[in-house]
Parts: sequence; C-alpha cells; structure tokens
Amino acid sequence: MDSLFTVMADPEFSNWERAALWSVLGTAVLGLLYAVFLAAQMLRKDQGTEAMRKISEAIRIGANAYLVQQFKTMLLLIFVLTGLLYFTAGEQHIKIGRAAAFILGAGFSWLVGFVGMNLAVQGNVRVAAASRTSFAEALKIAYRTGTITGMLTDGLGLLGGTLIFMIYGEQAYEVLLGFGFGGTLLALFMRVGGGIYTKAADVGADLVGKLEKDIPEDDPRNAATIADNVGDNVGDCAGMAADIFESYEVTIVAAMILGWASFGHKGVIFPLLVRAIGVVSSIIGTYLVRTSEEARAAMKAIHMGYATSAVVSIVGFVVVGFYYLRFPAGEMLPGWISLGVDGLDMRPVWTTLVGIALAISINYLTDYFTAPEKNPVQFVARATQTGHATTIINGFAVGLESSVWSILVIALAIFGSFLIYQGTNPTYIAYGVAMCGIGMLTLTGNNISMDVFGPVADNANGIGEMAHLDKKARQTLADLDAVGNTTKAITKGIAIGSAVIAAVSLFNAYITDIARFTGQTYEAIVPLLSISEPMVFIGFLIGGSIPFLFSSMTIRAVGRAAFLIVQEVREQFKDKAIWEGTKKPDYARVVGICTSEAQRELIGPGLLAVLAPVIVGMLLHKEALGGFLAGIILSGQLLAVFMSNAGGAWDNAKKFIEDGHYGGKGSDAHKASITGDTVGDPLKDTAGPALNPLIKVMNMVSLLILPFVVAHQEGNLFVWLVVLASIAILAVVIYRSKQESPAVLKWQAAIDKASTV
Amino acid sequence: MDSLFTVMADPEFSNWERAALWSVLGTAVLGLLYAVFLAAQMLRKDQGTEAMRKISEAIRIGANAYLVQQFKTMLLLIFVLTGLLYFTAGEQHIKIGRAAAFILGAGFSWLVGFVGMNLAVQGNVRVAAASRTSFAEALKIAYRTGTITGMLTDGLGLLGGTLIFMIYGEQAYEVLLGFGFGGTLLALFMRVGGGIYTKAADVGADLVGKLEKDIPEDDPRNAATIADNVGDNVGDCAGMAADIFESYEVTIVAAMILGWASFGHKGVIFPLLVRAIGVVSSIIGTYLVRTSEEARAAMKAIHMGYATSAVVSIVGFVVVGFYYLRFPAGEMLPGWISLGVDGLDMRPVWTTLVGIALAISINYLTDYFTAPEKNPVQFVARATQTGHATTIINGFAVGLESSVWSILVIALAIFGSFLIYQGTNPTYIAYGVAMCGIGMLTLTGNNISMDVFGPVADNANGIGEMAHLDKKARQTLADLDAVGNTTKAITKGIAIGSAVIAAVSLFNAYITDIARFTGQTYEAIVPLLSISEPMVFIGFLIGGSIPFLFSSMTIRAVGRAAFLIVQEVREQFKDKAIWEGTKKPDYARVVGICTSEAQRELIGPGLLAVLAPVIVGMLLHKEALGGFLAGIILSGQLLAVFMSNAGGAWDNAKKFIEDGHYGGKGSDAHKASITGDTVGDPLKDTAGPALNPLIKVMNMVSLLILPFVVAHQEGNLFVWLVVLASIAILAVVIYRSKQESPAVLKWQAAIDKASTV
Repeated sequence: MDSLFTVMADPEFSNWERAALWSVLGTAVLGLLYAVFLAAQMLRKDQGTEAMRKISEAIRIGANAYLVQQFKTMLLLIFVLTGLLYFTAGEQHIKIGRAAAFILGAGFSWLVGFVGMNLAVQGNVRVAAASRTSFAEALKIAYRTGTITGMLTDGLGLLGGTLIFMIYGEQAYEVLLGFGFGGTLLALFMRVGGGIYTKAADVGADLVGKLEKDIPEDDPRNAATIADNVGDNVGDCAGMAADIFESYEVTIVAAMILGWASFGHKGVIFPLLVRAIGVVSSIIGTYLVRTSEEARAAMKAIHMGYATSAVVSIVGFVVVGFYYLRFPAGEMLPGWISLGVDGLDMRPVWTTLVGIALAISINYLTDYFTAPEKNPVQFVARATQTGHATTIINGFAVGLESSVWSILVIALAIFGSFLIYQGTNPTYIAYGVAMCGIGMLTLTGNNISMDVFGPVADNANGIGEMAHLDKKARQTLADLDAVGNTTKAITKGIAIGSAVIAAVSLFNAYITDIARFTGQTYEAIVPLLSISEPMVFIGFLIGGSIPFLFSSMTIRAVGRAAFLIVQEVREQFKDKAIWEGTKKPDYARVVGICTSEAQRELIGPGLLAVLAPVIVGMLLHKEALGGFLAGIILSGQLLAVFMSNAGGAWDNAKKFIEDGHYGGKGSDAHKASITGDTVGDPLKDTAGPALNPLIKVMNMVSLLILPFVVAHQEGNLFVWLVVLASIAILAVVIYRSKQESPAVLKWQAAIDKASTV
Repeated sequence: MDSLFTVMADPEFSNWERAALWSVLGTAVLGLLYAVFLAAQMLRKDQGTEAMRKISEAIRIGANAYLVQQFKTMLLLIFVLTGLLYFTAGEQHIKIGRAAAFILGAGFSWLVGFVGMNLAVQGNVRVAAASRTSFAEALKIAYRTGTITGMLTDGLGLLGGTLIFMIYGEQAYEVLLGFGFGGTLLALFMRVGGGIYTKAADVGADLVGKLEKDIPEDDPRNAATIADNVGDNVGDCAGMAADIFESYEVTIVAAMILGWASFGHKGVIFPLLVRAIGVVSSIIGTYLVRTSEEARAAMKAIHMGYATSAVVSIVGFVVVGFYYLRFPAGEMLPGWISLGVDGLDMRPVWTTLVGIALAISINYLTDYFTAPEKNPVQFVARATQTGHATTIINGFAVGLESSVWSILVIALAIFGSFLIYQGTNPTYIAYGVAMCGIGMLTLTGNNISMDVFGPVADNANGIGEMAHLDKKARQTLADLDAVGNTTKAITKGIAIGSAVIAAVSLFNAYITDIARFTGQTYEAIVPLLSISEPMVFIGFLIGGSIPFLFSSMTIRAVGRAAFLIVQEVREQFKDKAIWEGTKKPDYARVVGICTSEAQRELIGPGLLAVLAPVIVGMLLHKEALGGFLAGIILSGQLLAVFMSNAGGAWDNAKKFIEDGHYGGKGSDAHKASITGDTVGDPLKDTAGPALNPLIKVMNMVSLLILPFVVAHQEGNLFVWLVVLASIAILAVVIYRSKQESPAVLKWQAAIDKASTV
C-alpha cells in the first residue's frame, strides 16, 4: 500500500501526520457513508398515492434522460481533452496521473449532479406524501434530501484531493490540475446546459400557460409542466451541486499547490484537516435541522443548523491549528500569531476564519437584496404599480447596487488575508487567500443542503398541485417552497463568491507557474504583469469583455429554446382532449426538445470558455493572458452578482404581490411583476450562475496551456495554426449564436404573410 | 508679450516652431470666428409664426434657467476646489496658474454648453420655420446650428491648451492638470444633472401623456412638454458638448505631458498641429453638408461631410508629420517609420491614423447595434410580439454583446499604438496611445455637429407639432428628427470610446507621476502596479464596482425626479380648462421641479466621483489607487456601452414599430416596445453617458491627490481625518440616494390606506 502512497513513505512526515492523512481520508468516506445513510432513510419513507408516484417518476425519467444525454455529449470532448492532457504532460507517471485525474474530476462532478439529482427526485414525492400528515416530517425529508448531495460533494471533493496528494506527494501539482480542470469543465457544461434547460422549460410553460391560457403553474394539462419540474432539478440541483463541488475542489487544489510551495507538508495537510473538520461539523449541523409541528419554523431551524456547524468548525480549526501549526522556533512572532507559544503560527487559522466571515457576510447580503420583506425587493414591488418599465428599471438599479457590496466584502476578505500575512512573501499571501477560500467553503455541506432543498420543495409543491392534495398539505408545501426559494437564492451568492476567491487563488498559481516555466524568480515575474504594461492592459480589456459575450450568448440561447417550447405547447393545446384534461399531454416530447436544445446550445459558450484563453495566450502571450484573467474575474463577478440578485429581487417582488399586496394576483401590478420575473429568469438561473464555472475554466485552461505559451513565445507555424483555427471556430460559434432558430424564422414568415394579406 | 509666453523666448524652439504655435493659436481663433459666423448666419433666418416663437422662447428660458442654476450650484464647489488647488501646488506662479486654469477649464466647459445650447434653441424654431418651404434649407440650418457648438468645442479646447503651454512651457504640466480637471468636473455635473433633467421630464411626460391619457408626444396640454424639450437641450446638447469638450481637453493634456517627457518640444507641438489640422478639416467638411430639395439625402450628406474631413485630416497629418518630425539623424529607422528619410519619425502620424480608424470603427459599431434596419434592432423589434419581458431580454442581450465589440476595437487600437512603438520605452508607448486619442477626436467638430443636430431637429419637430404646421412641413421635420436620432446615437459611441482612451492616457500619466513624486525610476514603479500585488488587485476590485454604484444611484435619481413630474402633470390635468386646451398649463412649474431635482440629485454621484479616489488613495495607498483606476476604466467602459446601446436598440425598435411594423402604433407589440424604450431612457441618456466623465474625473482626482498619497504613505492623524470624513460623507450620500422622496412615500401611504379601507 505504501508503494502507491508515496507520501506515506516520505520520512519528512511524522507518524502523527500519516495518521492525520488517513483520518482525513476516513472523514471523506464518513461523509459519503452519511450520504448513503440519509439516502436509505429517505427511500424508506412513504411515496404517497399512485398519482403522485407517477408524476415523480415522470420527472425522474426526464431528468435522467437529460443527464445521460449530457454525459454522451461530453464524452467526445472529455476523450479529446484526456488525450491532450496525457500527451502534454512531462513524465510518464504524471501523464497517466493527470489524464486519470481529469477523468476522475469530471466523473465526480457529474456523479455529484447525477446521484444528487436522482435522490432529489426520489425525495420530492416523499416530501409531498409527508406533507399530508406533518410539516416537521416534510421539512426533515426535504432538507436531508439536500444534505445527501451536500455530503456527496464534501466526501468526493475531499477524497479526490487527499488521494492524489497521498499518491503523488510533491508531484501532486500537475495531477491536481487535471482533477480540478475535469470538475470545472463539467460544472460549466452542467451549469450552462442545465440553465438553458430549466429556463427554456420555465419560460415556455409560463408564456403559454400563465399568460396565454390563464391556467395555474403546474397545471397537468400543460405539456411543459414535467419539463419545468425536470428543469428545476437539472438546473438548481445538478448544476449547482457540480458548480459548488468544483469550487470546493479548486480551492483545495489551489491551497495544496500554494501550501506546498510556502510551508511544505504542513501547508498541504492543514487545509485537508480544515476540510475534514468542515465535513464533521456539517454532519452535526445538518442533522440538527428540525422543527416542531406547532412552530413550523423552517427558516429558523436551517439557520440554527448553520450556526451550529459554524461554531463547531471554528472551535475545531483553532484547536487543530494550535496543536499542529508548530514550526522550528525562530524569532518570536507577535502574540496574535504565536499566542505566546514559541514556533506556533496561527495565521492559516485566522485566514480560514476570514473565509467563514466572508461566507456569512455574502449570505447576509444576498438575503438582504432578494428577501421579500427587505427594502430592495420592496422598492421593486412598489414600482410594479407604475408599470412594466419602472419594475425593470428599479430591479436593474437594485442588481447593480448589490454587486457593489458583494465585491467590496470580497475585497475586504482578500485585504484581511493580506493583513494577516503582511510583511511576508507573495506566495504566503496567496496561500492566505486560498485558505480564506477553504474557510469560505467549510460549510459546503450546509450550503448545498439549503440549495437542493429549493428544487425538492418546489417539485414537491408541483406534485401536490398536480395530484390535487388537500388544502392543509398544499399549505405546508407552499410554505416549504417559499423557504426553499429563499435558501436557494442565498446560496447563489456563496457560489459566485467562492468562484471569485477560487479564481484569485488560481490566478496566484498562474503567476508562480510563469516563474516555474520560465525558470525565473517570482520577483522577476511581478513587473511583467504590471497594469502599466500595454499588453497586460489589452489582455485585461479583452478578458473583461468575455463575461458580457458569454452572457449575451446564453441569454439568447434560452430565448431560442423557450420559443420552441412555446410552439410545442401551443400545438398540443390544439388537441381538444388535452385542453379538457381527458387526454394526457405528451410530456416526453417537451422534455426531449429541452434536452436536445440544451445540448445544442451549450456547445457555443463551452467553446468560448476553452478557446478564448488559448487565443489570447498564443497570440498575445503570457502577460496579456494574465491581464485577461484579472479582467474576467472582475467583470465576471460584477455581472454574475448583478444578474443573480436583480433576478432574485424581481422573483420575490412577484411573490410579494401574489401574497395579496398592491392588488394581488391578476392586477396590473402583478402583470408588471411577472414581466420582471420573466426577465430575471435567464439572468439569475442561466447566465449569472454559469459565469462561476466560466471564470474558473478560463483560469484552469490558462494554467494548462501556460507551458506552451511560454515555450512558443516567439511564435511559429504551429502556434499560428492553433490561433487561426481557434479564431475560426469561435467566429462560427459567435455567428451561429446570433442566428434565430429555423422555427422562429418560419413563424415570423407566417406572421409577415398574414399581416400583408 | 514674450515675457508672458516663456516658450517664445526659449532658444530650443526654432522660428518655424514659434510661428507654428502662433498659427495653432490662430486656428483656434479661426474656429471660434467660424462659430460666430455660423451663429450670425443662423440668427438672420426666419423665426416663423408668433406661436412658434413663443414655444421656442419658453424652451430657451427653461434651458437657461437650468444652466444658470447649475452654475450657481457649482460655484461653491468650484470655489473650494480652486482654493485647494491653489494651496496644494508648489511654486507661487504654478499655484496661481493651476487655480486659474481650473477655473478656465470649468468655465470653458460650461460656456460650450451654455452658448451652444442657447444657439441650439434659437436654431430649432428657425429649422421649423424653414421646414415649411424647404427640406434642404431646414437640414442646413439644423446641421450648422450643431456645428456652432462643434466649433466652440474645437476652438476653446485648442485655445486653452496652447495658451497654457505657451505661457508655462516646461512647467505647463501642473497647470494643464488644473485645466483638465476643471473641464472634467464640470462635464460630470452637466452630464449627470442634464441626464437626470432630460429623462425625468421625458419619462414623466410619457407616463402621463402617452400611457395614461393617450395623447401624442409634445401635446401642448401636457405640462411637461416644455420641460421635455428643455431636457433634450440640457442633456443631449449641453451635457454632450461639455463631455466631448472635456475628452478633447484631456487627450491634449495627456499628449502634451507625455510628449514633453518623451520627445521634448516636438512631442508637444505635433499634437497641437494635429488638432489645428482637425479644426480646419472640420470647417471644410461641415460646410459641405447639404442636399438637394429632391434627394432629401440628409444622412448621405452628413456622411459625405465626415468623409471629406477625414480625408483632409489624413493628408494634413502625413504632410505636416513628414516635414516636422525630423530628429537628429542616428541609426536608420525601418522604412515604415522613416520613409527612407534619415531622422524622420512618422510614428506619431501613424498612431493618429489608428485613432481615426478607431473613431470610424466605433461609429460603425454604434450604428450597427442601434440602427433600425440592422439585425440587432430587428431582433429586439421581433421580440415585442411576445411581450414586454422578451423585449427587455433581447435588448439586454444586444447591449451586452455590443460592449464586447466596442472594447475589442479599443483594445485593438491600443495594440496598434503599442506595435507602432514596440521596442521603445514605456513613455513612448503611452505617447502613442495619447496620440491615438488625439487622432480619434480630430473630427470633434463633425461629431458634435452630428450630435447637436439631434436635439435641434427633435425640438423643431416638437415646435412643429405644438404650432400645428402643415403636413408637408411636419413630414420634413419628422424625417430630420429620425436622422437626428441616428446621428445622436452614433456619437455616443465616440464619447465613451474617447473617454476610455483619454483615461488610459491619464493612467499612464499616473504611473509616470508616481515615479516623479517618489523620486524613483519608471522601471522601479512598474512592479508596484503588478496585478500580482494583493493591494493592486483589491483596488482593482473596488474600482470596478464604482461604475455599478454610480449607475445605480443615477438611475434611482431619475426615477425619483420622474415621479414628481408625474404627480405635477396629473395635478394640472385635473384642471378641466387645461385638459380641454382652453387654458395654458403651467409649464414653468414643471421646468422648476426638473431644475431643482436635477441639482439636488447630482450632489450624490458628484461626491462619489471626487471622494472615492481620495478614500482609496489615502487608506490603501498608491498601488491600490492604480488598480482602482484600471478597474474603473474596464467596468465603466463595459457598462457605459452596454447601457447606451441597449437603450438605443430599444428606442429604435419602438420607432421601427411606429413605422407600421408588427401592428404599428397602438398594438400590443407597440406597448411592449414603449416599455423597452422607457427602460432604456435612463440607461442611455443618464447613467451611460455620465460614466464617461466619471472615469476621467476619478483619474484626474487621483493625479491631483497623488503627491499627498505619496507623502502620507505612513499615515497620520490628518490622513485618518480626511479618510473618515470622506467615508462619513459618502455613507450619508449613498444612504440618501436609496431613500424614496417624501412625495413617493406620501403617495404610497395614500394607496396603502385606500387599499385597506
């Protein structure tokens, strides 16, 4: 066994450390076992009536069909990239390791989404069933169903990173890069594909159902209902889980890379220990989420669980740090670092605490900007009374402002990490930022529980409506759905925030890598990346524009796909039997259209993400590529938060009005609020969240191509061929992304003809 | 005389150069005289009927009232800043010079707006009068009225810069900074105040007139009509003129500063010569804008004039460069630089040509994204058929995409300037970028003519409607109005593009200044500003967020002000005599509300612009301030173009439908298009354009406070007081910017009460 785990044979490691590594591995397995335990517990619950089971089954089949299709679509790309990664690495065992790790990362990312989603669709019907008798039980099932995905994320993320480190030791870097890239790339596809799927189905179902036919959401006669519910799962559950899994992975990869470079093995083992503590505290915290039948205090219970996990983590970090972070005694460090103990260095602990504070602040901000009772949503809701335009304008203003505070707290966290490591060298500071990211994602188990709780409760509510449950059960489900909307919205902030911190860490790795590949010192690289250098500035301008292009593409993609759904649903409603409810609509056709459209539409944004850094790097060289990455981080963060929170505010303004304010359902204010919500849909559920993996994919691709960029700085035929081919492909992709689909053009021609006659 | 003009006595200057400087000054005066000639010519034209004159007079009084009020509001601030500038400069004569130049810059900026606007409101009634008999004549009057402002901009900009250089010579730098800052600050206030005014009046007039009462735009019974027309002038004419004047100023300031540092006097005189050539070619080109009565080819004539000016300029640059840019012969430069002539350096010429190419590209892009017949607007127009939400979403996608191409051509222009100076030192490259900015603004005379043509034609059309002119005249005015909308939209692209190039030049000056104030070499400063430095990155994140905050504030301000107008107009309509048209509404009250609201609302964004760099610089030091500036440039450019073009696309999609497509006026598609237009209004006419001066003000403030930032790097009580006071003021400003106005709250309370009863 020791022959595989090179680290175990390394004399530099103490027995204590070897034991620690094994126990980290054990904790990862524990997390996975806990997920299995929760899944088994959930699956034993009552599935309700035949009707409910059938609906749930339809959702499950649709969701699986999508993920399997997604997997097939990606197979070719994964195959090609695995080959590229294999042939471009140096030594033989690194080649194999990196290629294998890439597949592992992609596989884990997909698995988290696939298994989590499958269990979510098993959970929803059981929540609906439980709602008939007990609020407390329904809440518990819904939340724990989310925790399954949370624990899968925690467990697999920790397992992969730890195993790779134990096997490759000092050489883990290149292999970890493959692991991170696999997870990131898959998350991008899950986010984009899932986002297009879910919003095409949602917008399509609403445009025909709510606006044209005036029937309620989830009316079983609407052919897009099942697709809409499937969409909630592939978007909010699978997409989100893959996204956070990947941030979880990338931060640990960055921390391990930078930790090894600055502190040797302690720098690597400590983040793993922190993660292990996080897993344990998430298990404890999530287990405690429960409420009494009378109180029905779901939100309070969830917050309590979160707080418990946070406290357990903080105590754990401090204790473990205090005993482990001892270094050969030198000059006495200030008291806040050494706590008066010779050789003790508590700085990594303090940076993780900064990360936890960041997570809490971002949760607070997201809640403030999107919760119905707070000022911003009230501001948007008030505007609905003066019409569609003012609703949009006010939501726009709210979204813009929210991104400001969000980026300021992130800047503050980086500043905190910087202050903690002030006076040391740059890699130490970079390590501090990476540890801040580790701290921020400590409570990933809780965050994903909260997030997945959203689609589970939403679906349960849908099943309740379609299966005509009694009024009390419906109320319970509606309440849980509302809570789910809040928790789901809150975690979006964490997803983008962690993406930025992860990207900043990767960006630091980019700089150290330049030094490595050019054989220069870090200090010699610093001036190359100065914003006073024109090439850096040019790269920076180009990078900043990419999130805008990417968002434009994904928003258009949703529009095109939604249009096809609208056509299909209208077509089916022409069948009188379907309209009267005597014949079941063909749900599968709509599911099929969503699936194939989402696949088709994700190719463009995916290629943009992979090829843009290649073009910039090869054509404009490493300095421009550095600026490019910085530009993407900045504009990506601003745009993502703007779109997510504007969308969230519109969504909840609509809910606020539906609760009976400003005339309630059916009023003009309500119509304006629906406009806001519909505008927000592709922003908050497709374009916005997809920017998180985009930022990271581009950083990862840059790290991977850096050796070539450095080797081919002079330029040669090969470089020109790669650049020209990439530009040609991108040009086609961008051109195509702006074409209307044939269905739209056909429809338009018909209208033009009708209006001339 | 020579005692005042130190440069004239400088033996380093050849007689030829002294003559050149005098002739540049002469050209500036020539431009001003041409403006006077055009004004006299225009004022002699027929003013039409009594009714028309009265309307025009009302607009003129309203517009003047606003600008005078604006001036008073700013007096205190100008007074304080003049004092600060005086006391913070070094030597006595520099002190006086800088303070005086600040007043001069602010005064010129205001004067361009004030005089230009006054003549524009004289012009509009004459255009309306001419429309009764001749299209060609109406076009000529409208366009030449615009040219008056254009020539004022050219003339005063060139005059100020040249005079300061001739007086201060080598020490002109500090003084020019004051000149630039004065112009920039005033432009910010004109843009923000004018933008709030124009959109509050426009949105207010439309919401009550078009949507509630279903009466046409410019119906004389609507109390907001005059304010709406005034708004077009203060926003599009005065605001825009001040904005471009200031870019014109800032680029020449940057080119002179960098030119002196790199090439000595030739580096300063050449940009002045380029500018003088631009003035002459603008005079020629604008003079040629005319069309025949049969052809009615307004757009073609304007394009022809532009092309003529461009060709004259290009020829002029090459010829003057060829004879003037001779340096002591050294090693032979490559043929494309020296054209085979020993000592000749044509690089400054090539970079100005890059600038002209950039201007043309940006004009093309803006036209592509906002012209009714092109794909993007068609894409938005099509979406109106599926409702309000899809209209907004598609416009959003179009706006996002447009900012990508715009930033890419800017990056390309910088890259071009870089390639031209590749292999030389950084200040040469910076000079190249500044010369690119000079080139870009060569045709300022034409650009402003095109821009001001917009509000003149718009107002003439409004007067035509209010004075009930005959059908043929109305058609002529409507046609001119449509052309004006296009030309106005096109020049917005140039305004923001030039702001970015100007800001990049200032940014380069910032770096050279750090070297100067710290007494270090440029090379020693470069690594300090590396994006690998955490403080630079933090500043960069903060900077990027400012345009988002600023836009959020200005958009909210428009909403608040518009709401007050809505209330006032509704109130006046309650008077039956006004509704029936037997009594004139109280236009002055609405004008008064717009004026006072615009003044009140511009304080917040103005303080943000001035204080944010102070806080970042004092608290986080010069490195962070550098990152901050880079962040502002990036996100400011992206956001400004996004907002301007999305707004332009929505606007023209509405016009496209009003021309009879998709059901034409009154259809559901038309309603959706009005929503788009209304959403776009504050984006394209308030928030978007105000970002141009914002970017530059922040760069200017940073340059001005840099000596203090450097001197107080260690921090002391004084610094902390400044920082704390600034933060406190900003906190109050931001808090207040989010409060609803008392009128809204009162109205809301009334509604709440009504709905509970």
